[in-house]
Amino acid sequence: MGMDPDAVAKAFVDHYYSTFDANRSGLANLYQDNSMLTFEGQKIQGSQNIVAKLTSLPFQQCQHSVSTVDCQPSGPSGGVLVFVSGNLQLAGEQHALKFSQMFHLMPTPQGSFYVLNDIFRLNYA
Amino acid sequence: MGMDPDAVAKAFVDHYYSTFDANRSGLANLYQDNSMLTFEGQKIQGSQNIVAKLTSLPFQQCQHSVSTVDCQPSGPSGGVLVFVSGNLQLAGEQHALKFSQMFHLMPTPQGSFYVLNDIFRLNYA
Repeated sequence: MGMDPDAVAKAFVDHYYSTFDANRSGLANLYQDNSMLTFEGQKIQGSQNIVAKLTSLPFQQCQHSVSTVDCQPSGPSGGVLVFVSGNLQLAGEQHALKFSQMFHLMPTPQGSFYVLNDIFRLNYA
Repeated sequence: MGMDPDAVAKAFVDHYYSTFDANRSGLANLYQDNSMLTFEGQKIQGSQNIVAKLTSLPFQQCQHSVSTVDCQPSGPSGGVLVFVSGNLQLAGEQHALKFSQMFHLMPTPQGSFYVLNDIFRLNYA
C-alpha cells in the first residue's frame, strides 16, 4: 500500500515541530546514522551528532509556526521531500525569525519514515 | 567516478538562474517528463508544462541574486539535493522579493543531471 505523500508530510511536520518546541532530545529517533543536517551552512551527520547540535542551540524555549508545507515523492525509493516555511519565535525576543527547511523522508522497514536529509536556513527577514 | 555534490550544486545553480533570467524557455532541457514543480503551492508535472508555467509568470524581466546554496547527496541513486535562498528583483519593482527553492537533481545516463523535484516559495519579506 502506498502512502499519500501529503499525509506523510503533514503528520511529520506536526510531530517534528511540536517535539522540537517541547523536548528537542526527543527528535533523536527521527534520524539515523546516515542522516545529514545542514544547519545554517554547518554540516552534521548522524542522529547523535544532529541531536547534540539541536539541543545546544543558544536558546531554551522556542515556538515554530508553520506557514507553508509542500511535498513531492522523491523517486522510486519511496522517499518524500518536504519543504517548510514559517516563523520561529525565540523566548524573550520581540520579533519572530523567518525560516525555511527541507526534509527528505525515507521509509523504514517498519513502515515508518526517518529523516535522511535536513537543511535549515533562517531568512533574516 | 563520483561527482562532488557541492560542485554539482554550484554549477547547476549558476546555470539555472542565469538561464531563467536571460531566456526562461531554455530551462526545458533541465526537466524531463517525470519532473515535478511545486510553484507557490501549485503542482505541475513534466518538462513541457513546467516551462509553460515559468514562461507565463506575470513579469518579463527578473534578476535572481543567490544568497545561500546548501547541498547534500540524496541517497544511493546518486541524486543531489540543492537548497537555495536569495532575492528576486522584478523589473519596475522597488523592492526585491525573498525566495527559497529546493531542487532534487538526478543523474542522467549521459553523465549530466536533470531536475526531478523543484519546489519554489516566496517568503514575502
